[in-house]
Amino acid sequence: MTSGQAAVILKAATQLFAALGYDGTSTRQIADAAGLNIATVNYHVGGKRELYLAVMEAAHQAEKAALEQALSRLPGDDPVAAIHRLADDYLDFCVDHPEVPALWMHRWLSDASDITELERQYVQPLLAAVSAALRPAVEAGLIAAETDLDYTVWSVIWTVHGFAKGGVLDAEGRRRAAGDRAALRRFRAHLHQSLHRTLGLPGDFR
Amino acid sequence: MTSGQAAVILKAATQLFAALGYDGTSTRQIADAAGLNIATVNYHVGGKRELYLAVMEAAHQAEKAALEQALSRLPGDDPVAAIHRLADDYLDFCVDHPEVPALWMHRWLSDASDITELERQYVQPLLAAVSAALRPAVEAGLIAAETDLDYTVWSVIWTVHGFAKGGVLDAEGRRRAAGDRAALRRFRAHLHQSLHRTLGLPGDFR
Repeated sequence: MTSGQAAVILKAATQLFAALGYDGTSTRQIADAAGLNIATVNYHVGGKRELYLAVMEAAHQAEKAALEQALSRLPGDDPVAAIHRLADDYLDFCVDHPEVPALWMHRWLSDASDITELERQYVQPLLAAVSAALRPAVEAGLIAAETDLDYTVWSVIWTVHGFAKGGVLDAEGRRRAAGDRAALRRFRAHLHQSLHRTLGLPGDFR
Repeated sequence: MTSGQAAVILKAATQLFAALGYDGTSTRQIADAAGLNIATVNYHVGGKRELYLAVMEAAHQAEKAALEQALSRLPGDDPVAAIHRLADDYLDFCVDHPEVPALWMHRWLSDASDITELERQYVQPLLAAVSAALRPAVEAGLIAAETDLDYTVWSVIWTVHGFAKGGVLDAEGRRRAAGDRAALRRFRAHLHQSLHRTLGLPGDFR
């Protein structure tokens, strides 16, 4: 057993689960993509369920590390700019690691619905950390009264995932997603403006 | 051949493509779910590609009919209320026909990526109709200057799909989606507020 083989298996499993979902992927496809046989895959990481749990754990650790780094820079001197930077950091993470939003988007579609613990275990603590980071801006009155902060955070998640994976259509009906730099720049500006206005933040942010 | 059998096949195919995606579904699964053999499925609707095209055509016709009805009621006496009602109608459609957002969300994940015409053929004309319906509000100055209207429409699509399929998490980390009436009510209020503020619409809308 080499850790190199385990890494190859996890990379192949991540790509397949992100593309086809857990329910749409077989252990044989993962073994084929890794250039190994199923027995070797089982030996290193276990069956499909164990592979999925390992993939989701790695995706979560990457997201958690990025978010903790982003939150550690809050609030800084300018709490409004800090909120924009947080949205930016989240967008950058999803663009740089497209397999992570893909894995979660498959779960929105009830992929691997018999594995129910991942939202409580992984998503909930990150949401709580973001809420806690935004609380001072609420208490300072920077965020407008009656704003549904939780659902606004969800809206950032939904829009960033939607853009990062599906993108928008250009005038000819072709997809333009994060790989298209002009579309990404325009989405980023829209995300800032929409979040700024939804939260009712003071000032004009560019 | 009975049209009843074709309807059963299309229903089974719709459910499977919405759950597993085109790439994750086999013709055998569709035949099994319809209680027929593959030869009968082929005879009625053709192979997997023809089944998918028929499913997407039906999904599009349902969405187009709902949107045309919604747009026919615009702008009415109150153009701001009309914009809110349009978002409501879209949310209601996606909640009542969860297979439609699911089919498109699979496409965001590059499902059936060899079938490239559907966005240009189906999505683009609906987006253009919505843009045209919103133009008077832009020209009247009701929608704030510098609003990115196209990306705001996309944000409504992304958030409605995200909520309708994935939902939010409650304090215990359990999913609450459109089937949860309290969550749906709260999402609807958030959608109104977020859209109202993002567009910079005048007045306070409930």
